[in-house]
Amino acid sequence: MLQVPTRYLHGPGPSPVPPSVLNALSQPCIGHMDPVFMQIMNEVRQMMQKVFQTENEMTLACSGTGSAGAEMLVDNLVEPGDVCLVGINGVFGGRLTDKAKRAGGTVHNMNADWGQVFSQDAIIAEVERLRPKIVIFVHAETSTGVCQPFDRLAEAVHAHDGLLVMDCVTSFAGLPVKIDPWGIDAAYSGTQKCLSCPPGLSPVTLSERAMHKVRNRKSTVNSWYLDLNLVGNYWTGNRAYHHTAPINMNYALHEALRLVLEEGLEPRFVRHRRVHEMLKAELEKRGFSYASDPQNSLPMLNLVNIPAGVENEAGIRKRLLDEFNLEIGGGLGTLAGKCWRIGLMGHGAREENLRLILDALDQVLA
Amino acid sequence: MLQVPTRYLHGPGPSPVPPSVLNALSQPCIGHMDPVFMQIMNEVRQMMQKVFQTENEMTLACSGTGSAGAEMLVDNLVEPGDVCLVGINGVFGGRLTDKAKRAGGTVHNMNADWGQVFSQDAIIAEVERLRPKIVIFVHAETSTGVCQPFDRLAEAVHAHDGLLVMDCVTSFAGLPVKIDPWGIDAAYSGTQKCLSCPPGLSPVTLSERAMHKVRNRKSTVNSWYLDLNLVGNYWTGNRAYHHTAPINMNYALHEALRLVLEEGLEPRFVRHRRVHEMLKAELEKRGFSYASDPQNSLPMLNLVNIPAGVENEAGIRKRLLDEFNLEIGGGLGTLAGKCWRIGLMGHGAREENLRLILDALDQVLA
Repeated sequence: MLQVPTRYLHGPGPSPVPPSVLNALSQPCIGHMDPVFMQIMNEVRQMMQKVFQTENEMTLACSGTGSAGAEMLVDNLVEPGDVCLVGINGVFGGRLTDKAKRAGGTVHNMNADWGQVFSQDAIIAEVERLRPKIVIFVHAETSTGVCQPFDRLAEAVHAHDGLLVMDCVTSFAGLPVKIDPWGIDAAYSGTQKCLSCPPGLSPVTLSERAMHKVRNRKSTVNSWYLDLNLVGNYWTGNRAYHHTAPINMNYALHEALRLVLEEGLEPRFVRHRRVHEMLKAELEKRGFSYASDPQNSLPMLNLVNIPAGVENEAGIRKRLLDEFNLEIGGGLGTLAGKCWRIGLMGHGAREENLRLILDALDQVLA
Repeated sequence: MLQVPTRYLHGPGPSPVPPSVLNALSQPCIGHMDPVFMQIMNEVRQMMQKVFQTENEMTLACSGTGSAGAEMLVDNLVEPGDVCLVGINGVFGGRLTDKAKRAGGTVHNMNADWGQVFSQDAIIAEVERLRPKIVIFVHAETSTGVCQPFDRLAEAVHAHDGLLVMDCVTSFAGLPVKIDPWGIDAAYSGTQKCLSCPPGLSPVTLSERAMHKVRNRKSTVNSWYLDLNLVGNYWTGNRAYHHTAPINMNYALHEALRLVLEEGLEPRFVRHRRVHEMLKAELEKRGFSYASDPQNSLPMLNLVNIPAGVENEAGIRKRLLDEFNLEIGGGLGTLAGKCWRIGLMGHGAREENLRLILDALDQVLA
C-alpha cells in the first residue's frame, strides 16, 4: 500500500490540502451523468462565479491542470492570424506565447524584467498601436512573485474589439480577482494554489463577448477535448455527454470552494496579506531580501534572493525536505540558482506555519 | 459538506471504486517534483507496462481523462496531410476521426454496423490499398459492447511504414491488451473502467517506432499540454517540470494498478468473463437479447436490446437509480432508445453484484 509522507507545502504549489477536502475527494465515485453529479457541477460553477466575482454563465472546471485551462482559453479564443499581445515577465508568459502560436496566432510580446510588472499605461499604448484581437497577461506570476495590475486595461482592449485574458492561477482565492468589475473576458486558474485543493482541475470563466467569438469561429478549435462548443454543453446548456469528468476531483473542488466562501473572500485576502507581512518581516530580520518589485509583491508567493554564502542551494532545499518535510521552491528559468520561492497559499497561509518555516531555515542556514 | 450517495455503478463507466483506492486518493498531497512523487510515478509507469504487456519506456498517465489520452496520441502522431485509416463502428471511432482531422490528417474511414466488428482481412486489404501513416481502431467499443480483434494487423501496417494505434479504454485490465505481442505502436485507456479508479487520468503507451515519429515531426504538435516532447521529459528522461501532475489521482491509479497485479492479469480476465457469462445466462432467461456480435461481445460491457413493451426506457433507468441506486447506461448515438449498456467492470465484475442488478431489473420491469 502507498505510504505518502506529510509534507509542509510552502513552495509554488501544490499547497497544503485541508482534511475536509481530502475527505470530499474520497467520497464514493458516481456517474458523470448522475443528477447528483449534475447538481454538484452546478454548485461548483456557482461557487466559482463568486470567487471569480463574475456572473459569466460559461464558468466551469476544465478537466486538466492549470496548463490545460490556459490551453482551453487560447485554443478557443485565438483564430489563425489573430494578432495577440502577450506579456512576458516570467515563465508563464513565455508558455502562453508558445500556446498562442500553436493556435495560429500572430504573437507580439511585451517584455519586462523578471520580478517586475508592466505599467498599465504602457500596455494600453501597445494595445492602441497593435489593435490586438487577444491580450494576455499573467495576474500573479508564480515564477517571480509579482502581481500585475489589471484594473484599467479592458477599455482600451475592447475599443479595438479585442478580448482581455488573464492567468490567475496563483491569485485566485488569495487576492481579489475581479472578472466583471475589471472587464476581463476570460480567465483561468488552478486548484492547487490558494484554493488548497489537489491539482487536477482548472477553474475557467469566459464572458459573453468571449463566447460570442467562440461560437462564431471560422476555423475549428485545435483541440476536441478542450473545445468549448462541446465542453460547454456538458457544463451548461443541454448537458450533452462530452467526456467523463474527473468526478472525485470535482468533489474536492466543491469542498475547497465551500471553505473559501465560508471564510469569506475579503477575510481570506486579509489573512494572506497578514501572514505574508509577518513572514517578510522575519525574513528581512534574518538578512533576506526580496527579488520582486516591492510595490507589487504577491502575498502568497515570496521571491527571495538566496543568501550570499549559500553554495549549494539545491542541497539546502533537499535538507529542508528530508529533515523537516518542508518544501520550498527553487527559482525557475533565469532565476534558477538565484532565488527561492516561499509559498503561503490557502491553507498554508497561517501564522502557525511560519514558525516551522523559519525554524527550519534557521537550522539549515546556521 | 458534500454528501454523495453510494451508487452501484453498472453503466459504461465509471465503475465501482474499491475502498483502498479511495483511501489512496485521500493521502496527503505532496509536490509534483518531490522525490517521493517521482518514485510513485516510476511505479505507476512500471505497473502500467505490465498491464499493457509492453516494455515501452514511453508509458505514462496523461493528465486528463481517456479523451485527453486519445488526443495526446492523435495530436502527436498525426502530421498535417498524413493519411489516416480510422474504423467507425460506434461513437468513439467517430470521435477519433474528428480528432485526426483537427490534427490535420487526411482521414479515410471504414464503417461497420454498430455492434459489429471489422474482419482483420478487410482492414489489412484497406491498409494495403491506402498505405496509411496512422491506423486507428477501437479495441473495446464502449458504445456497442464489441471487441475488435487486433492480433494480425501490425505486419501490414508496418510494411507501409504506418503506425497502429489502439483505443483500449474499456478493455485495459479487463481483457488481454497485448501491446508488444500484437505490435501495437500506441494505445490509450482511462482509469474509470476496468481499473476501477475514479476518472481523471489516461494510461498511455507508445513504442519506440511511434516516439521516433514524435521526435522527428516537421510540424509543431497542436497542443502544448499534450506535447509528448515536453510531457515525456517529465515522466521519463530528465524529469523537467512541465505541468503540475494531478498528484492524488496518481496515488489512486497506483493503488488500482497494485490491486490488478495482486489479483493477476489472467485471473482478472477470467473473472470478468465468468461474471459476464452468469449475467448473460440470467438475462437471456428473462427474455433479453444481446445486440452485439455474439462472437465478439465484451465481457465488461453488455449491450442488450430494450425489451418490447418498455415505452419509457429513460424512466426505467431513472427508477433503477432513484429506487435501487443502480446505474446502467442508455444507448449512445444510433442505439439511443434501443439498447441498454450493463457494465461489469473491475471491482463491479463480481458475483454478488449480479443479484442486485437482476433483482432491480425484475422489479422495475414487473
